[in-house]
Amino acid sequence: MIERLCVIGVGLIGGSLARAVREAGICQEVVGAGRNPQNLQTAIDLGVIDRYETDLARAVAGADMVLVSVPLGAMAAVFDAIKGHLAEHAVVTDAGSAKGSVIDAVRQAFGVVPAFFVPGHPIAGTEQSGVEASFASLYRGSRVILTPLADTDSYALDRVRDMWEAAGAEVIEMDSVHHDAVLAATSHLPHVLAYALVDSLARLSDDGEVFEYAAGGFRDFTRIASSDPVMWRDICLANGDAIQLMIENYVADLQELTAAIENRDGQQILKLFTSAKAARDRYVEK
Amino acid sequence: MIERLCVIGVGLIGGSLARAVREAGICQEVVGAGRNPQNLQTAIDLGVIDRYETDLARAVAGADMVLVSVPLGAMAAVFDAIKGHLAEHAVVTDAGSAKGSVIDAVRQAFGVVPAFFVPGHPIAGTEQSGVEASFASLYRGSRVILTPLADTDSYALDRVRDMWEAAGAEVIEMDSVHHDAVLAATSHLPHVLAYALVDSLARLSDDGEVFEYAAGGFRDFTRIASSDPVMWRDICLANGDAIQLMIENYVADLQELTAAIENRDGQQILKLFTSAKAARDRYVEK
Repeated sequence: MIERLCVIGVGLIGGSLARAVREAGICQEVVGAGRNPQNLQTAIDLGVIDRYETDLARAVAGADMVLVSVPLGAMAAVFDAIKGHLAEHAVVTDAGSAKGSVIDAVRQAFGVVPAFFVPGHPIAGTEQSGVEASFASLYRGSRVILTPLADTDSYALDRVRDMWEAAGAEVIEMDSVHHDAVLAATSHLPHVLAYALVDSLARLSDDGEVFEYAAGGFRDFTRIASSDPVMWRDICLANGDAIQLMIENYVADLQELTAAIENRDGQQILKLFTSAKAARDRYVEK
Repeated sequence: MIERLCVIGVGLIGGSLARAVREAGICQEVVGAGRNPQNLQTAIDLGVIDRYETDLARAVAGADMVLVSVPLGAMAAVFDAIKGHLAEHAVVTDAGSAKGSVIDAVRQAFGVVPAFFVPGHPIAGTEQSGVEASFASLYRGSRVILTPLADTDSYALDRVRDMWEAAGAEVIEMDSVHHDAVLAATSHLPHVLAYALVDSLARLSDDGEVFEYAAGGFRDFTRIASSDPVMWRDICLANGDAIQLMIENYVADLQELTAAIENRDGQQILKLFTSAKAARDRYVEK
């Protein structure tokens, strides 16, 4: 049971978690925190939080669970602001899509990574953002990766795990470096590719004519290019090294395929397409 | 009114057109043609065609409209086979995703591009294939591009236009070279990128672990990598020059973005993501 959950950053991710733990009946009070009182008032009106604070020191006071769900670029400032104001028994976790940079920000703020801090990443979301888009079932059936350090308190880890499981998620533990490489591959790289594609096509035709003839596949393929640009800029800055490696790896593979197309090597093209289709079909069946 | 429509290649595209014209009540008889009697029998059982022929010369006999909806790689053989067997008043059109290569195949078979041949491309489809996946409303609200040549008969053009409009499509005319460039950009390039991504990730992790942590965005982004590999190999062979140009153009843009990530140039990254999101949102609103 969580007595007081403080959600710093009440958007799609934080708002959905708040809704989920309330619906699960495992949380007595939710305090929302952020910079925008209007957004926080909306969160109250929608029944997502009970009350709000715009001062982070006041917001975390007395909270036994703190979820930091702000854009990666705002993490460092949040940890600076809450340091010294946490309750003695508080557990702190986050929802950042890259873990190395968040752990660095925590270390910077606290001097060490405190045992009560559990780095986390719910793999869920839509291309929508904001508390208006939040819903209690966002995490149902999805995965949450926790990347505890050697010194992380096992009680803190259990409490964070319980919270996400109550929200319907499957919780997995992994090393933060591995997390950042895997997410660079399956999430950050596709976003970068989709943004680059839409940008590339927009540059090709000033009048947008090229988009006129795009079919359903294009709409699906580029859906993630409608994601929040600030959030994705932050991810690129926070996990840049891993993303850069993945792009280089991808471009090398793409150039093999391009060479096959240039050489009209139908056998090689078919081999690659067939194995890709098989890999995706296996993934979808799961 | 079409008295006898001959559909050569009764799959998703040809089968859906047959269903649509029957539903619209503008076609008296549909003859299916292809190499696989089992598939053609299925088409009869599903009510998609009235009868079938596996001999193409017999199939087109007496047909006033012939739709060639076979994979691009099979086009040349079909035109060779039907040459000299068409009815005097027959109009022939096709549904190939690249137009230059089909026009070349027709010229090769007939010596010239006959006035009764209207190159066409319905921009519709799913990642499914086969007559079992066909449905009458596939073309409703979608676009069909016709790329008539200077010598194309205007009566033939009108008849093909009427057929697609009866199926619910909006018909547009454009030059075949422009068609092939635009489709390389909005359809062929995304498919190549998606296949290459899934292949690249599959190579990264033998056990498929990397796919375990993919979220909804990844599923959408890679949906087109579940498309028919033979069809897409054929498209890459048929429209290779235009596709290669588009890949090169894309990789250059992607490398600009990669440099911005490497330099942690948040302003440049945000600018690109913001303009891409705006372009996609404009496209989706239409």
